Amino acid sequence: MIVTAHIDEVRANRWQDGTESWGLVPTMGYLHEGHLSLVRRAHAENDRVAVSIYVNPIQFAPTEDLSNYPRDLERDLALLEKETVDLVFTPSDAVMYPAGFQTAVTVAEVAKPLEGASRPTHFQGVATIVAKLFNIVQPSRAYFGQKDAQQAIVLRQMVRDLNFNLALIVCPIVREPDGLALSSRNKYLSPDERKAALVLSRALKQAQTAFDSGERDAQKIRQAMIELITAEPLARLDYVSVADSETLIELDVIKRKTLFSMAVFIGQTRLIDNMMVETSPV
Amino acid sequence: MIVTAHIDEVRANRWQDGTESWGLVPTMGYLHEGHLSLVRRAHAENDRVAVSIYVNPIQFAPTEDLSNYPRDLERDLALLEKETVDLVFTPSDAVMYPAGFQTAVTVAEVAKPLEGASRPTHFQGVATIVAKLFNIVQPSRAYFGQKDAQQAIVLRQMVRDLNFNLALIVCPIVREPDGLALSSRNKYLSPDERKAALVLSRALKQAQTAFDSGERDAQKIRQAMIELITAEPLARLDYVSVADSETLIELDVIKRKTLFSMAVFIGQTRLIDNMMVETSPV
Repeated sequence: MIVTAHIDEVRANRWQDGTESWGLVPTMGYLHEGHLSLVRRAHAENDRVAVSIYVNPIQFAPTEDLSNYPRDLERDLALLEKETVDLVFTPSDAVMYPAGFQTAVTVAEVAKPLEGASRPTHFQGVATIVAKLFNIVQPSRAYFGQKDAQQAIVLRQMVRDLNFNLALIVCPIVREPDGLALSSRNKYLSPDERKAALVLSRALKQAQTAFDSGERDAQKIRQAMIELITAEPLARLDYVSVADSETLIELDVIKRKTLFSMAVFIGQTRLIDNMMVETSPV
Repeated sequence: MIVTAHIDEVRANRWQDGTESWGLVPTMGYLHEGHLSLVRRAHAENDRVAVSIYVNPIQFAPTEDLSNYPRDLERDLALLEKETVDLVFTPSDAVMYPAGFQTAVTVAEVAKPLEGASRPTHFQGVATIVAKLFNIVQPSRAYFGQKDAQQAIVLRQMVRDLNFNLALIVCPIVREPDGLALSSRNKYLSPDERKAALVLSRALKQAQTAFDSGERDAQKIRQAMIELITAEPLARLDYVSVADSETLIELDVIKRKTLFSMAVFIGQTRLIDNMMVETSPV
Protein backbone atom coordinates (compact mmCIF):
# COMPACT_ATOMS: atom_id res chain seq x y z
CA MET A 1 0.00 0.00 0.00
CA ILE A 2 1.49 3.29 -1.14
CA VAL A 3 0.90 6.20 1.22
CA THR A 4 1.81 9.57 -0.20
CA ALA A 5 1.20 13.26 0.35
CA HIS A 6 2.45 14.13 -3.15
CA ILE A 7 0.29 14.69 -6.23
CA ASP A 8 3.07 13.60 -8.59
CA GLU A 9 3.40 10.29 -6.81
CA VAL A 10 -0.35 9.69 -6.99
CA ARG A 11 -0.23 10.33 -10.74
CA ALA A 12 2.82 8.16 -11.33
CA ASN A 13 1.02 5.24 -9.66
CA ARG A 14 -2.36 5.97 -11.20
CA TRP A 15 -0.95 5.93 -14.73
CA GLN A 16 1.64 3.18 -14.29
CA ASP A 17 -0.69 0.97 -16.30
CA GLY A 18 -3.15 3.23 -18.03
CA THR A 19 -5.57 0.43 -18.87
CA GLU A 20 -6.44 -0.34 -15.25
CA SER A 21 -9.63 0.98 -13.70
CA TRP A 22 -9.34 2.90 -10.44
CA GLY A 23 -11.90 3.51 -7.77
CA LEU A 24 -11.51 6.57 -5.53
CA VAL A 25 -12.94 6.87 -2.03
CA PRO A 26 -12.53 10.47 -0.80
CA THR A 27 -12.64 10.69 3.01
CA MET A 28 -11.79 13.03 5.86
CA GLY A 29 -10.30 10.10 7.78
CA TYR A 30 -11.27 8.74 11.20
CA LEU A 31 -12.63 5.84 9.22
CA HIS A 32 -15.59 3.70 10.23
CA GLU A 33 -17.51 0.82 8.67
CA GLY A 34 -19.34 3.31 6.45
CA HIS A 35 -16.08 4.31 4.78
CA LEU A 36 -14.93 0.71 4.63
CA SER A 37 -18.14 -0.30 2.87
CA LEU A 38 -17.21 2.22 0.15
CA VAL A 39 -13.70 0.79 -0.07
CA ARG A 40 -15.08 -2.75 -0.46
CA ARG A 41 -17.48 -1.67 -3.17
CA ALA A 42 -14.63 0.14 -4.95
CA HIS A 43 -12.57 -3.04 -4.75
CA ALA A 44 -15.35 -5.13 -6.24
CA GLU A 45 -15.77 -2.78 -9.19
CA ASN A 46 -12.21 -1.66 -10.03
CA ASP A 47 -8.72 -3.07 -10.62
CA ARG A 48 -7.21 -0.63 -8.13
CA VAL A 49 -8.47 1.41 -5.19
CA ALA A 50 -7.28 4.82 -3.98
CA VAL A 51 -8.46 6.42 -0.74
CA SER A 52 -7.83 10.06 0.10
CA ILE A 53 -7.65 11.20 3.71
CA TYR A 54 -7.87 14.94 4.04
CA VAL A 55 -9.80 17.16 6.44
CA ASN A 56 -10.71 19.87 3.94
CA PRO A 57 -10.62 23.24 5.71
CA ILE A 58 -12.67 25.15 3.12
CA GLN A 59 -15.80 23.09 3.74
CA PHE A 60 -15.87 24.13 7.41
CA ALA A 61 -17.24 27.53 8.47
CA PRO A 62 -15.12 29.47 11.01
CA THR A 63 -17.62 28.52 13.75
CA GLU A 64 -17.48 24.81 12.95
CA ASP A 65 -15.40 21.92 14.25
CA LEU A 66 -12.39 21.96 11.91
CA SER A 67 -9.79 22.04 14.68
CA ASN A 68 -11.58 19.39 16.76
CA TYR A 69 -12.47 17.12 13.87
CA PRO A 70 -11.29 13.66 14.95
CA ARG A 71 -8.07 12.42 13.35
CA ASP A 72 -6.20 9.12 13.71
CA LEU A 73 -4.07 8.52 10.65
CA GLU A 74 -2.25 5.52 12.08
CA ARG A 75 -5.47 3.68 12.80
CA ASP A 76 -6.91 4.71 9.41
CA LEU A 77 -3.89 3.33 7.57
CA ALA A 78 -4.07 0.05 9.48
CA LEU A 79 -7.73 -0.32 8.49
CA LEU A 80 -6.99 0.45 4.84
CA GLU A 81 -4.03 -1.94 4.83
CA LYS A 82 -6.42 -4.72 5.89
CA GLU A 83 -8.67 -3.82 2.95
CA THR A 84 -5.63 -4.09 0.63
CA VAL A 85 -6.07 -0.58 -0.67
CA ASP A 86 -3.48 0.28 -3.37
CA LEU A 87 -2.90 3.95 -2.72
CA VAL A 88 -3.65 6.36 0.12
CA PHE A 89 -3.36 10.08 -0.60
CA THR A 90 -2.75 12.13 2.55
CA PRO A 91 -2.00 15.66 1.35
CA SER A 92 -1.14 18.67 3.48
CA ASP A 93 -2.97 21.99 3.33
CA ALA A 94 0.07 23.46 1.57
CA VAL A 95 -0.29 20.90 -1.23
CA MET A 96 -4.03 21.38 -1.62
CA TYR A 97 -4.25 25.14 -1.08
CA PRO A 98 -0.88 26.69 -1.92
CA ALA A 99 -0.36 30.45 -1.59
CA GLY A 100 -2.37 32.29 -4.23
CA PHE A 101 -5.11 29.65 -4.46
CA GLN A 102 -8.25 31.40 -5.73
CA THR A 103 -10.52 29.03 -7.68
CA ALA A 104 -13.92 27.68 -6.64
CA VAL A 105 -16.43 25.24 -8.04
CA THR A 106 -20.00 26.25 -7.24
CA VAL A 107 -23.16 24.25 -7.76
CA ALA A 108 -26.20 26.51 -7.49
CA GLU A 109 -29.76 25.26 -6.87
CA VAL A 110 -29.26 21.83 -5.27
CA ALA A 111 -26.64 23.26 -2.88
CA LYS A 112 -28.97 25.93 -1.51
CA PRO A 113 -31.49 24.25 0.83
CA LEU A 114 -30.96 21.96 3.86
CA GLU A 115 -27.25 21.65 4.63
CA GLY A 116 -26.56 24.56 2.27
CA ALA A 117 -28.97 26.82 4.19
CA SER A 118 -27.37 25.91 7.53
CA ARG A 119 -23.81 25.86 6.17
CA PRO A 120 -23.68 28.46 3.33
CA THR A 121 -20.05 27.91 2.28
CA HIS A 122 -20.01 24.15 2.84
CA PHE A 123 -20.84 22.78 -0.60
CA GLN A 124 -18.55 25.18 -2.46
CA GLY A 125 -15.77 23.76 -0.28
CA VAL A 126 -16.90 20.20 -0.98
CA ALA A 127 -17.29 20.68 -4.74
CA THR A 128 -13.91 22.39 -5.01
CA ILE A 129 -11.95 19.74 -3.09
CA VAL A 130 -13.70 16.89 -4.87
CA ALA A 131 -13.00 18.46 -8.27
CA LYS A 132 -9.35 18.66 -7.23
CA LEU A 133 -9.28 15.04 -6.04
CA PHE A 134 -10.98 13.92 -9.27
CA ASN A 135 -8.30 15.70 -11.29
CA ILE A 136 -5.46 14.38 -9.16
CA VAL A 137 -6.56 10.72 -9.19
CA GLN A 138 -8.66 10.69 -12.39
CA PRO A 139 -10.60 7.66 -11.15
CA SER A 140 -12.94 5.52 -13.24
CA ARG A 141 -15.43 5.52 -10.38
CA ALA A 142 -15.77 7.59 -7.20
CA TYR A 143 -17.62 6.43 -4.10
CA PHE A 144 -19.66 8.48 -1.65
CA GLY A 145 -22.03 7.60 1.18
CA GLN A 146 -25.78 8.14 1.10
CA LYS A 147 -25.35 9.43 4.67
CA ASP A 148 -24.38 12.78 3.14
CA ALA A 149 -27.38 12.70 0.81
CA GLN A 150 -27.21 16.31 -0.35
CA GLN A 151 -23.46 16.08 -0.87
CA ALA A 152 -24.05 13.15 -3.22
CA ILE A 153 -26.71 15.14 -5.10
CA VAL A 154 -24.46 18.22 -5.37
CA LEU A 155 -21.52 16.14 -6.59
CA ARG A 156 -23.62 14.22 -9.09
CA GLN A 157 -24.73 17.58 -10.49
CA MET A 158 -21.10 18.76 -10.64
CA VAL A 159 -19.99 15.58 -12.43
CA ARG A 160 -22.79 15.97 -14.97
CA ASP A 161 -22.33 19.73 -15.50
CA LEU A 162 -18.52 19.73 -15.73
CA ASN A 163 -18.39 16.43 -17.66
CA PHE A 164 -16.05 14.60 -15.33
CA ASN A 165 -15.20 11.30 -17.02
CA LEU A 166 -16.15 9.00 -14.15
CA ALA A 167 -19.10 7.26 -12.55
CA LEU A 168 -20.23 8.63 -9.20
CA ILE A 169 -21.50 5.81 -7.01
CA VAL A 170 -23.54 6.37 -3.87
CA CYS A 171 -23.52 3.58 -1.27
CA PRO A 172 -26.12 2.86 1.45
CA ILE A 173 -25.90 4.27 4.97
CA VAL A 174 -24.23 1.92 7.44
CA ARG A 175 -25.90 1.95 10.88
CA GLU A 176 -25.13 0.75 14.38
CA PRO A 177 -27.33 -2.17 15.49
CA ASP A 178 -29.60 0.28 17.32
CA GLY A 179 -30.07 2.42 14.20
CA LEU A 180 -27.61 5.31 14.67
CA ALA A 181 -26.00 6.18 11.33
CA LEU A 182 -22.22 5.82 11.47
CA SER A 183 -20.38 9.15 11.53
CA SER A 184 -16.94 10.25 12.59
CA ARG A 185 -18.72 12.91 14.64
CA ASN A 186 -20.48 10.28 16.81
CA LYS A 187 -17.22 10.27 18.75
CA TYR A 188 -18.20 13.67 20.20
CA LEU A 189 -21.28 12.20 21.95
CA SER A 190 -21.42 11.58 25.73
CA PRO A 191 -23.18 8.34 26.77
CA ASP A 192 -26.44 10.22 27.38
CA GLU A 193 -26.14 12.05 24.08
CA ARG A 194 -25.41 8.75 22.33
CA LYS A 195 -28.81 7.48 23.53
CA ALA A 196 -30.54 10.75 22.62
CA ALA A 197 -29.01 10.58 19.14
CA LEU A 198 -31.34 7.71 18.32
CA VAL A 199 -34.12 10.27 17.75
CA LEU A 200 -32.81 10.79 14.22
CA SER A 201 -33.18 7.22 13.03
CA ARG A 202 -36.37 6.78 15.08
CA ALA A 203 -37.92 9.80 13.37
CA LEU A 204 -36.98 8.38 9.96
CA LYS A 205 -38.36 4.97 10.84
CA GLN A 206 -41.61 6.58 11.95
CA ALA A 207 -41.76 8.50 8.66
CA GLN A 208 -41.21 5.31 6.71
CA THR A 209 -43.93 3.51 8.63
CA ALA A 210 -46.35 6.35 7.84
CA PHE A 211 -45.27 6.28 4.21
CA ASP A 212 -45.59 2.49 3.99
CA SER A 213 -49.13 2.67 5.34
CA GLY A 214 -50.04 5.08 2.55
CA GLU A 215 -49.45 8.57 3.98
CA ARG A 216 -48.59 10.95 1.11
CA ASP A 217 -49.06 14.28 2.90
CA ALA A 218 -45.50 15.59 3.24
CA GLN A 219 -46.37 18.16 5.87
CA LYS A 220 -47.96 15.53 8.12
CA ILE A 221 -44.81 13.41 7.91
CA ARG A 222 -42.58 16.44 8.52
CA GLN A 223 -44.69 17.48 11.52
CA ALA A 224 -44.57 14.03 13.09
CA MET A 225 -40.77 13.92 12.74
CA ILE A 226 -40.47 17.39 14.28
CA GLU A 227 -42.63 16.35 17.24
CA LEU A 228 -40.62 13.22 17.87
CA ILE A 229 -37.32 15.13 17.76
CA THR A 230 -38.40 18.09 19.88
CA ALA A 231 -39.69 15.66 22.54
CA GLU A 232 -36.06 14.61 23.14
CA PRO A 233 -34.59 17.04 25.75
CA LEU A 234 -30.98 16.76 24.51
CA ALA A 235 -31.98 17.36 20.87
CA ARG A 236 -32.25 20.72 19.11
CA LEU A 237 -33.74 20.56 15.64
CA ASP A 238 -31.90 22.28 12.77
CA TYR A 239 -34.16 21.15 9.91
CA VAL A 240 -36.46 18.37 8.83
CA SER A 241 -37.13 17.94 5.12
CA VAL A 242 -39.39 15.91 2.85
CA ALA A 243 -38.10 16.81 -0.59
CA ASP A 244 -37.78 15.66 -4.17
CA SER A 245 -34.68 13.49 -4.16
CA GLU A 246 -33.20 15.13 -7.27
CA THR A 247 -34.05 18.81 -6.96
CA LEU A 248 -34.35 18.90 -3.14
CA ILE A 249 -37.44 21.05 -3.52
CA GLU A 250 -39.78 20.57 -0.55
CA LEU A 251 -42.88 18.59 -1.41
CA ASP A 252 -46.52 19.08 -0.44
CA VAL A 253 -47.55 15.68 -1.71
CA ILE A 254 -45.14 12.77 -1.97
CA LYS A 255 -45.15 11.85 -5.63
CA ARG A 256 -41.97 10.08 -6.70
CA LYS A 257 -38.50 9.49 -5.28
CA THR A 258 -38.52 11.37 -2.00
CA LEU A 259 -35.75 12.16 0.45
CA PHE A 260 -36.58 12.38 4.14
CA SER A 261 -33.68 14.18 5.81
CA MET A 262 -32.78 16.09 8.92
CA ALA A 263 -30.06 17.80 10.89
CA VAL A 264 -30.26 17.76 14.68
CA PHE A 265 -27.92 19.10 17.34
CA ILE A 266 -27.40 16.58 20.12
CA GLY A 267 -25.71 18.76 22.72
CA GLN A 268 -22.97 20.53 20.74
CA THR A 269 -22.80 17.86 18.05
CA ARG A 270 -24.64 18.37 14.78
CA LEU A 271 -25.81 15.08 13.30
CA ILE A 272 -27.54 14.37 9.98
CA ASP A 273 -29.48 11.39 8.77
CA ASN A 274 -31.80 10.56 5.88
CA MET A 275 -33.85 7.96 4.13
CA MET A 276 -34.95 7.62 0.54
CA VAL A 277 -38.40 6.28 -0.28
CA GLU A 278 -39.90 5.63 -3.65
CA THR A 279 -43.54 5.49 -4.66
CA SER A 280 -44.32 2.52 -6.88
CA PRO A 281 -45.28 3.39 -10.43
CA VAL A 282 -49.08 3.34 -10.73
CA MET B 1 -10.68 13.76 -39.53
CA ILE B 2 -13.52 12.90 -37.18
CA VAL B 3 -16.07 15.66 -36.70
CA THR B 4 -18.54 15.06 -33.92
CA ALA B 5 -21.00 16.89 -31.70
CA HIS B 6 -21.12 14.01 -29.20
CA ILE B 7 -19.13 13.74 -25.99
CA ASP B 8 -19.19 9.93 -26.04
CA GLU B 9 -17.66 9.90 -29.50
CA VAL B 10 -14.90 12.30 -28.43
CA ARG B 11 -14.08 9.99 -25.51
CA ALA B 12 -14.18 6.81 -27.59
CA ASN B 13 -11.61 8.34 -29.95
CA ARG B 14 -9.55 9.96 -27.23
CA TRP B 15 -9.11 6.69 -25.34
CA GLN B 16 -8.88 4.34 -28.33
CA ASP B 17 -5.19 4.08 -27.56
CA GLY B 18 -4.69 5.37 -24.05
CA THR B 19 -0.94 5.78 -24.41
CA GLU B 20 -1.16 8.51 -27.05
CA SER B 21 -0.70 12.14 -26.11
CA TRP B 22 -3.41 14.55 -27.22
CA GLY B 23 -3.25 18.28 -27.75
CA LEU B 24 -6.46 20.31 -27.46
CA VAL B 25 -7.05 23.65 -29.14
CA PRO B 26 -10.32 25.16 -27.83
CA THR B 27 -11.77 27.74 -30.24
CA MET B 28 -14.98 29.63 -30.97
CA GLY B 29 -14.45 28.95 -34.69
CA TYR B 30 -14.10 31.45 -37.55
CA LEU B 31 -10.51 30.33 -37.57
CA HIS B 32 -7.57 32.48 -38.58
CA GLU B 33 -3.81 32.04 -38.65
CA GLY B 34 -3.67 32.63 -34.90
CA HIS B 35 -5.76 29.51 -34.29
CA LEU B 36 -3.83 27.57 -36.92
CA SER B 37 -0.55 28.45 -35.19
CA LEU B 38 -1.95 26.76 -32.06
CA VAL B 39 -2.96 23.71 -34.10
CA ARG B 40 0.53 23.44 -35.60
CA ARG B 41 2.18 23.73 -32.21
CA ALA B 42 -0.20 21.07 -30.85
CA HIS B 43 0.75 18.83 -33.77
CA ALA B 44 4.45 19.26 -33.10
CA GLU B 45 4.08 18.33 -29.43
CA ASN B 46 1.43 15.57 -29.42
CA ASP B 47 0.53 12.32 -31.15
CA ARG B 48 -3.01 13.52 -31.82
CA VAL B 49 -4.74 16.88 -32.06
CA ALA B 50 -8.32 17.78 -31.14
CA VAL B 51 -9.90 21.15 -31.90
CA SER B 52 -13.17 22.27 -30.37
CA ILE B 53 -15.38 24.78 -32.16
CA TYR B 54 -18.04 26.22 -29.91
CA VAL B 55 -19.30 29.75 -29.43
CA ASN B 56 -19.80 29.57 -25.68
CA PRO B 57 -22.90 31.60 -24.77
CA ILE B 58 -22.10 31.95 -21.05
CA GLN B 59 -18.96 33.99 -21.68
CA PHE B 60 -20.98 36.68 -23.46
CA ALA B 61 -22.95 39.30 -21.55
CA PRO B 62 -26.53 39.96 -22.78
CA THR B 63 -25.30 43.23 -24.36
CA GLU B 64 -22.45 41.58 -26.25
CA ASP B 65 -22.11 40.09 -29.72
CA LEU B 66 -23.12 36.46 -29.16
CA SER B 67 -25.74 36.40 -31.93
CA ASN B 68 -23.49 38.27 -34.39
CA TYR B 69 -20.30 36.39 -33.57
CA PRO B 70 -18.93 35.25 -36.95
CA ARG B 71 -19.42 31.59 -37.78
CA ASP B 72 -18.34 29.54 -40.81
CA LEU B 73 -18.09 25.89 -39.87
CA GLU B 74 -17.56 24.65 -43.42
CA ARG B 75 -14.55 26.90 -43.94
CA ASP B 76 -13.22 26.05 -40.46
CA LEU B 77 -13.40 22.32 -41.17
CA ALA B 78 -11.63 22.75 -44.50
CA LEU B 79 -8.81 24.64 -42.77
CA LEU B 80 -8.51 21.97 -40.05
CA GLU B 81 -8.60 19.16 -42.61
CA LYS B 82 -5.55 20.77 -44.25
CA GLU B 83 -3.78 20.76 -40.89
CA THR B 84 -4.59 17.02 -40.55
CA VAL B 85 -6.37 17.49 -37.27
CA ASP B 86 -7.59 14.17 -35.82
CA LEU B 87 -10.79 15.22 -34.11
CA VAL B 88 -13.06 18.26 -34.23
CA PHE B 89 -15.64 18.64 -31.47
CA THR B 90 -18.59 20.81 -32.53
CA PRO B 91 -21.14 20.48 -29.71
CA SER B 92 -24.57 22.10 -29.56
CA ASP B 93 -25.77 24.26 -26.67
CA ALA B 94 -28.03 21.38 -25.61
CA VAL B 95 -25.00 19.12 -25.22
CA MET B 96 -22.94 21.68 -23.30
CA TYR B 97 -25.69 23.25 -21.19
CA PRO B 98 -28.52 20.75 -20.83
CA ALA B 99 -31.63 21.65 -18.84
CA GLY B 100 -30.80 21.90 -15.15
CA PHE B 101 -27.19 22.98 -15.70
CA GLN B 102 -26.08 24.92 -12.58
CA THR B 103 -22.33 24.60 -11.98
CA ALA B 104 -19.70 27.32 -12.33
CA VAL B 105 -15.93 27.51 -12.04
CA THR B 106 -14.79 30.86 -10.67
CA VAL B 107 -11.27 32.23 -10.49
CA ALA B 108 -11.14 35.20 -8.13
CA GLU B 109 -8.33 37.78 -8.08
CA VAL B 110 -6.75 37.47 -11.54
CA ALA B 111 -10.20 37.53 -13.19
CA LYS B 112 -11.21 40.84 -11.58
CA PRO B 113 -9.31 43.64 -13.35
CA LEU B 114 -9.07 44.57 -17.06
CA GLU B 115 -11.37 42.33 -19.12
CA GLY B 116 -13.01 41.14 -15.91
CA ALA B 117 -13.84 44.72 -14.91
CA SER B 118 -15.35 45.49 -18.32
CA ARG B 119 -16.98 42.05 -18.71
CA PRO B 120 -17.90 40.89 -15.17
CA THR B 121 -19.32 37.46 -16.07
CA HIS B 122 -16.87 36.72 -18.87
CA PHE B 123 -14.17 34.72 -17.12
CA GLN B 124 -16.60 32.58 -15.14
CA GLY B 125 -18.04 31.59 -18.51
CA VAL B 126 -14.57 30.94 -19.92
CA ALA B 127 -13.33 28.94 -16.91
CA THR B 128 -16.51 26.84 -16.84
CA ILE B 129 -16.47 25.94 -20.54
CA VAL B 130 -12.74 25.23 -20.53
CA ALA B 131 -13.08 22.99 -17.46
CA LYS B 132 -15.80 21.11 -19.34
CA LEU B 133 -13.68 20.79 -22.48
CA PHE B 134 -10.70 19.62 -20.41
CA ASN B 135 -12.87 16.92 -18.83
CA ILE B 136 -14.39 15.88 -22.14
CA VAL B 137 -11.12 15.60 -24.07
CA GLN B 138 -8.68 15.04 -21.17
CA PRO B 139 -5.78 16.36 -23.26
CA SER B 140 -2.11 16.08 -22.39
CA ARG B 141 -1.63 19.70 -23.44
CA ALA B 142 -4.02 22.56 -24.14
CA TYR B 143 -3.16 25.54 -26.35
CA PHE B 144 -4.27 29.14 -25.97
CA GLY B 145 -3.23 32.40 -27.62
CA GLN B 146 -1.32 35.18 -25.89
CA LYS B 147 -3.78 37.52 -27.65
CA ASP B 148 -6.21 36.80 -24.80
CA ALA B 149 -3.53 37.42 -22.20
CA GLN B 150 -5.79 37.59 -19.16
CA GLN B 151 -7.70 34.51 -20.29
CA ALA B 152 -4.41 32.59 -20.35
CA ILE B 153 -3.58 33.86 -16.85
CA VAL B 154 -7.03 32.95 -15.51
CA LEU B 155 -6.89 29.49 -17.06
CA ARG B 156 -3.36 28.85 -15.84
CA GLN B 157 -4.59 29.70 -12.32
CA MET B 158 -7.56 27.35 -12.76
CA VAL B 159 -5.34 24.51 -13.98
CA ARG B 160 -3.02 24.99 -11.00
CA ASP B 161 -5.79 25.39 -8.40
CA LEU B 162 -8.00 22.53 -9.61
CA ASN B 163 -5.03 20.26 -10.44
CA PHE B 164 -5.96 19.57 -14.04
CA ASN B 165 -3.54 16.94 -15.30
CA LEU B 166 -2.32 18.79 -18.38
CA ALA B 167 0.14 21.43 -19.53
CA LEU B 168 -1.35 24.77 -20.53
CA ILE B 169 0.64 26.28 -23.37
CA VAL B 170 0.36 29.90 -24.43
CA CYS B 171 1.42 30.77 -28.00
CA PRO B 172 2.52 34.15 -29.37
CA ILE B 173 0.14 36.65 -30.96
CA VAL B 174 -0.07 36.37 -34.73
CA ARG B 175 -0.32 39.78 -36.45
CA GLU B 176 -1.18 41.14 -39.88
CA PRO B 177 1.85 42.58 -41.73
CA ASP B 178 0.81 46.07 -40.57
CA GLY B 179 0.67 45.00 -36.92
CA LEU B 180 -3.03 44.35 -36.25
CA ALA B 181 -3.43 41.32 -34.01
CA LEU B 182 -5.51 38.63 -35.69
CA SER B 183 -9.01 38.29 -34.25
CA SER B 184 -12.25 36.82 -35.50
CA ARG B 185 -13.81 40.16 -34.56
CA ASN B 186 -11.64 42.05 -37.09
CA LYS B 187 -14.30 40.97 -39.57
CA TYR B 188 -16.63 43.57 -38.04
CA LEU B 189 -14.34 46.47 -39.07
CA SER B 190 -15.15 48.80 -41.98
CA PRO B 191 -12.15 49.82 -44.15
CA ASP B 192 -11.76 53.07 -42.19
CA GLU B 193 -12.06 51.25 -38.89
CA ARG B 194 -9.54 48.66 -40.07
CA LYS B 195 -7.01 51.52 -40.48
CA ALA B 196 -7.97 53.09 -37.16
CA ALA B 197 -7.54 49.71 -35.42
CA LEU B 198 -3.80 50.05 -35.89
CA VAL B 199 -3.74 52.39 -32.87
CA LEU B 200 -3.65 49.37 -30.60
CA SER B 201 -0.46 47.84 -31.94
CA ARG B 202 1.05 51.31 -32.47
CA ALA B 203 0.43 52.17 -28.82
CA LEU B 204 2.09 48.93 -27.76
CA LYS B 205 5.05 49.53 -30.04
CA GLN B 206 5.46 53.00 -28.61
CA ALA B 207 5.35 51.54 -25.09
CA GLN B 208 7.99 49.00 -25.99
CA THR B 209 10.22 51.67 -27.47
CA ALA B 210 9.95 53.68 -24.25
CA PHE B 211 10.62 50.58 -22.19
CA ASP B 212 13.62 49.59 -24.37
CA SER B 213 15.12 53.04 -23.90
CA GLY B 214 14.94 52.60 -20.12
CA GLU B 215 11.60 54.05 -19.09
CA ARG B 216 10.40 52.29 -15.91
CA ASP B 217 7.66 54.70 -14.83
CA ALA B 218 4.47 52.73 -15.50
CA GLN B 219 2.22 55.77 -15.35
CA LYS B 220 4.25 57.62 -18.00
CA ILE B 221 3.94 54.63 -20.32
CA ARG B 222 0.22 54.30 -19.61
CA GLN B 223 -0.32 58.00 -20.24
CA ALA B 224 1.53 57.96 -23.56
CA MET B 225 -0.55 55.00 -24.74
CA ILE B 226 -3.77 56.75 -23.70
CA GLU B 227 -2.78 59.88 -25.60
CA LEU B 228 -1.99 57.96 -28.75
CA ILE B 229 -5.29 56.07 -28.61
CA THR B 230 -7.50 59.05 -27.81
CA ALA B 231 -5.94 60.95 -30.71
CA GLU B 232 -7.59 58.49 -33.09
CA PRO B 233 -11.12 59.78 -33.82
CA LEU B 234 -12.65 56.32 -34.45
CA ALA B 235 -11.20 54.88 -31.24
CA ARG B 236 -12.82 54.90 -27.79
CA LEU B 237 -10.58 53.71 -24.98
CA ASP B 238 -11.89 51.05 -22.59
CA TYR B 239 -8.71 50.50 -20.58
CA VAL B 240 -4.95 50.66 -20.77
CA SER B 241 -2.92 48.65 -18.30
CA VAL B 242 0.70 48.23 -17.22
CA ALA B 243 0.48 45.35 -14.77
CA ASP B 244 2.39 42.51 -13.18
CA SER B 245 2.06 39.68 -15.69
CA GLU B 246 1.11 37.10 -13.07
CA THR B 247 -1.13 38.94 -10.62
CA LEU B 248 -2.36 41.64 -13.06
CA ILE B 249 -1.91 44.21 -10.32
CA GLU B 250 -1.21 47.65 -11.80
CA LEU B 251 2.40 48.75 -11.37
CA ASP B 252 3.88 52.11 -10.41
CA VAL B 253 7.38 51.08 -11.36
CA ILE B 254 8.09 48.36 -13.91
CA LYS B 255 10.06 45.76 -12.00
CA ARG B 256 9.80 42.33 -13.51
CA LYS B 257 7.63 40.57 -16.12
CA THR B 258 5.13 43.22 -17.14
CA LEU B 259 2.05 43.03 -19.31
CA PHE B 260 1.06 46.06 -21.38
CA SER B 261 -2.55 45.55 -22.40
CA MET B 262 -5.57 47.44 -23.62
CA ALA B 263 -9.13 47.25 -24.84
CA VAL B 264 -10.33 49.79 -27.37
CA PHE B 265 -13.64 50.22 -29.16
CA ILE B 266 -13.15 50.92 -32.84
CA GLY B 267 -16.64 51.99 -33.80
CA GLN B 268 -18.87 49.26 -32.32
CA THR B 269 -16.10 46.66 -32.26
CA ARG B 270 -14.20 46.02 -29.06
CA LEU B 271 -10.60 44.98 -29.75
CA ILE B 272 -7.88 43.90 -27.33
CA ASP B 273 -4.13 43.66 -27.71
CA ASN B 274 -1.13 43.24 -25.45
CA MET B 275 2.60 42.84 -25.18
CA MET B 276 4.77 41.23 -22.55
CA VAL B 277 8.10 42.80 -21.61
CA GLU B 278 10.66 41.51 -19.18
CA THR B 279 13.32 43.42 -17.30
CA SER B 280 16.70 41.74 -17.40
CA PRO B 281 17.90 40.40 -14.07
CA VAL B 282 20.32 42.90 -12.50
